[in-house]
Amino acid sequence: MNAANISRPQLKIRRISLDTGRENVVVISRRSKALRPEIFRGFSRVELRCNSKVLLATLILTDDGLVAPDELGLADPAFRRFGEPVGGLVTVTPVTPPDSLDAVRAKIQGRALTASEISAIVDDVTHYRYSDMEIAAFLVGSASFMTSDELLALSHAMAQAGTQLTWDVPIVVDKHCIGGIPGNRTSMIVVPIVAAHGLTIPKTSSRAITSPAGTADTMEVLARVDLSVDEMKQVVTVCNGCLVWGGHVNLSPADDIFISVERPLSLDTREQMVASIMSKKIAAGSTHLLIDLPVGPAAKLRSPIEAMRLRKLFEFVGDHFGITVEVVTTDGSQPIGNGIGPVLEAQDVMAVLANDPSAPADLREKSLQLAARLLEYDPQLRGGTGYARARDLLESGAALKQMNKIIDAQGPSGCRTDLGTLTSDVPAPRSGVVEAIDCLRLNRLARTAGAPIDTGAGIKVFKKIGDRVEQGEPLYRIHAFDDSEFDLAVSAAKIDAGYVLGSRSSRNGP
Amino acid sequence: MNAANISRPQLKIRRISLDTGRENVVVISRRSKALRPEIFRGFSRVELRCNSKVLLATLILTDDGLVAPDELGLADPAFRRFGEPVGGLVTVTPVTPPDSLDAVRAKIQGRALTASEISAIVDDVTHYRYSDMEIAAFLVGSASFMTSDELLALSHAMAQAGTQLTWDVPIVVDKHCIGGIPGNRTSMIVVPIVAAHGLTIPKTSSRAITSPAGTADTMEVLARVDLSVDEMKQVVTVCNGCLVWGGHVNLSPADDIFISVERPLSLDTREQMVASIMSKKIAAGSTHLLIDLPVGPAAKLRSPIEAMRLRKLFEFVGDHFGITVEVVTTDGSQPIGNGIGPVLEAQDVMAVLANDPSAPADLREKSLQLAARLLEYDPQLRGGTGYARARDLLESGAALKQMNKIIDAQGPSGCRTDLGTLTSDVPAPRSGVVEAIDCLRLNRLARTAGAPIDTGAGIKVFKKIGDRVEQGEPLYRIHAFDDSEFDLAVSAAKIDAGYVLGSRSSRNGP
Repeated sequence: MNAANISRPQLKIRRISLDTGRENVVVISRRSKALRPEIFRGFSRVELRCNSKVLLATLILTDDGLVAPDELGLADPAFRRFGEPVGGLVTVTPVTPPDSLDAVRAKIQGRALTASEISAIVDDVTHYRYSDMEIAAFLVGSASFMTSDELLALSHAMAQAGTQLTWDVPIVVDKHCIGGIPGNRTSMIVVPIVAAHGLTIPKTSSRAITSPAGTADTMEVLARVDLSVDEMKQVVTVCNGCLVWGGHVNLSPADDIFISVERPLSLDTREQMVASIMSKKIAAGSTHLLIDLPVGPAAKLRSPIEAMRLRKLFEFVGDHFGITVEVVTTDGSQPIGNGIGPVLEAQDVMAVLANDPSAPADLREKSLQLAARLLEYDPQLRGGTGYARARDLLESGAALKQMNKIIDAQGPSGCRTDLGTLTSDVPAPRSGVVEAIDCLRLNRLARTAGAPIDTGAGIKVFKKIGDRVEQGEPLYRIHAFDDSEFDLAVSAAKIDAGYVLGSRSSRNGP
Repeated sequence: MNAANISRPQLKIRRISLDTGRENVVVISRRSKALRPEIFRGFSRVELRCNSKVLLATLILTDDGLVAPDELGLADPAFRRFGEPVGGLVTVTPVTPPDSLDAVRAKIQGRALTASEISAIVDDVTHYRYSDMEIAAFLVGSASFMTSDELLALSHAMAQAGTQLTWDVPIVVDKHCIGGIPGNRTSMIVVPIVAAHGLTIPKTSSRAITSPAGTADTMEVLARVDLSVDEMKQVVTVCNGCLVWGGHVNLSPADDIFISVERPLSLDTREQMVASIMSKKIAAGSTHLLIDLPVGPAAKLRSPIEAMRLRKLFEFVGDHFGITVEVVTTDGSQPIGNGIGPVLEAQDVMAVLANDPSAPADLREKSLQLAARLLEYDPQLRGGTGYARARDLLESGAALKQMNKIIDAQGPSGCRTDLGTLTSDVPAPRSGVVEAIDCLRLNRLARTAGAPIDTGAGIKVFKKIGDRVEQGEPLYRIHAFDDSEFDLAVSAAKIDAGYVLGSRSSRNGP
């Protein structure tokens, strides 16, 4: 079919202001002579070639003047990914489906895939050669079963597909939480403690996707987080650690693409979660990894048995790639810390680091526990003294000093740091003891209030499980900037505040 | 979340000239205040509400003047499906994923679905509530296994989801071929024979999707085929039969949506094929159905065993729904008839009906065999006389008369009926006997030449399996209108003409 490239006219690139997310979209006039009849159909997939570059895109046809018949309109994301200038000449052909789709079909039919087949799939996905539905076919086909070898091959291929960091030190520690718990911003306390001690901890984090804040969003309240690989390395050289957004570092880019399909489908298999996390850690050059699995009634893991199954998979993959993996299960029954939303969470973090007496004790204690385990990886430290060392570094102000050093090194973000000025306290409907808090509900309310887009929006929690409340006493405060979002969050909280109040005695006595 | 509908401004519908195929696409200004923060992302899915109507669509954001901040740009297909006027006020909310996706996830995890779950899925798919990747998730999840009950439930739900035809006669016959064989336009001969006899045969056909002609494309050379349900019924009342395009009749619309996802994924499971075909026949009100399964090295079915498995499934579903199903396996090793492409195939059909001595004997014979089986369903006909009756109706000119009556009743199409004027004969590279013909290859060449878009483009076959050819003697002739398509087809035929020539003796003797 190469002859097609010769006999059809080429089209001139034009950039058009359409944000199509991760999808490459190209707009072509229906009067264009560049299209072969078999691709004269909206939403078919086409292959664009310019010089030696190739981009696969979804075709939209137009009848009006948005693009001329001799032009090719590239939506912004496609324009960026193609990297060719306006006016560049492009040939358009029907898409040749990636060869690796044969392996996807084999998987659907129940065959285990080889490492090279998995590697080819990941390579094609990373280079945007798969459509959403093709990615869905791979993920769903893999969801029914994945062998241990396939899991290893997938983790490896995903790690290889992007940036691979190397560090000139024997021990590179990292921590990861599978998420789902409001607040819980332990990384921002653990990193400065561990870095102050002298271990290397180059932490990359994600932004919120369905939650009211990711660690990257919260850190951005304090410092710039969209560092390049070189900038990140520079910060780690100076500070032993960093707290940056993983998006610019391009670790395991296939993972981000898989997640963008898994999420709307609510696909959630253990193997895919493990491959996702471990591929990023392998690519990040971690040697010692602590994984936090919160377990609770509204957490991602509902029972210790689920957590144990997941733990085994992490250990299996870690062992194979020579990474020391330690998995801890933690209490995931309620928020950790008081703030939910970037500014509120950043305030909690800084209060803990500053040894402020009003700082949330649960966030402080959990962070110390996690930091202690990481410090134990230091061969120089006497076994069992990790906790005491972590506490010393926190109480002495060394951790706060290290955090400020990291903040300075990463530079200012320009992010708004003020709290939402529209506030409303959500009162207890009756007196009683807090028996349960619905983490999902609080996350949703904080998001409705505007977090993470409005960094100062969110929820400040006043009451935790076991606390006694009197009728009318505030359970938490909603913060927002936007009137309509504020109204929405307040009325949603009236319908379901997310608290269960019982009559049993409080943890602080009757 | 209903409060969202109140507090966000509504947007005014504007129609924009974008052909996005089966996907609903909406374009909104990034400056619009109608978007909640969680949907500020390109290619997220949104729900549009206007009066009581709801449409799910894929969001594209724009920064320039394509739409104003208070406008909502609906791409053509979305505009048509929404059915609301320009200027209509629309609220935009994030999509609430259809509840039936829970069943899809259960299916992925290996559970058999209930009839009501399958019915909910089909209903949501039919109403464009599923994204492509969600449809892919269902199809791939079902590809690994589907129980007999699931197959019945799927066929039933698909049949219920669109138009359901009823006829005031006890016997309604139909025929269906699973396709893949070039030419093979038997329906256009079988329908007039059976209708001339007096049986009711309301035939709906598809257009070509990957082939150079569907029955609807070929019939359109002779008559209008895009009839509404009422027009189709009118034709059947007058003529006992019709030959119309199924697209306007809206039989099993979910099927068309499933196929649009199965095709790019090359998903091809027996159960899905049977549900697809049987749902359309159930909805069409057929009581007796003849299914033609061509078997051959380049056909959809490669072996009699594959055909038998498929036959059992058709019989199983037919029995359940009270449809008498008869399945015949036929020779799928080469084209049936001489023409490949709408005009060429229509010429073959009319030559057979006119008893033209030069008419292709294989097309005539196969059509008589199929018509004979359908005629045997007539209780008034003495058993075993179907073939003789079919031949009488053909030879007496009654079938031709009936075909002309159907053509008149359906009306003129305005379609081009002339043959492609650019022609090139493809010569035999050496002398020998035709041992095999690659059906896939000839289909692709005819399509490259411009069929079915250019109705007069295609291939006229001169040599069939068993024929002796001398070096340089034409195997077939390529017809085209478009210079570049003609060049492409001619050069592709030079690379691989699709014929295997051997030295064994010809079927017509040495």
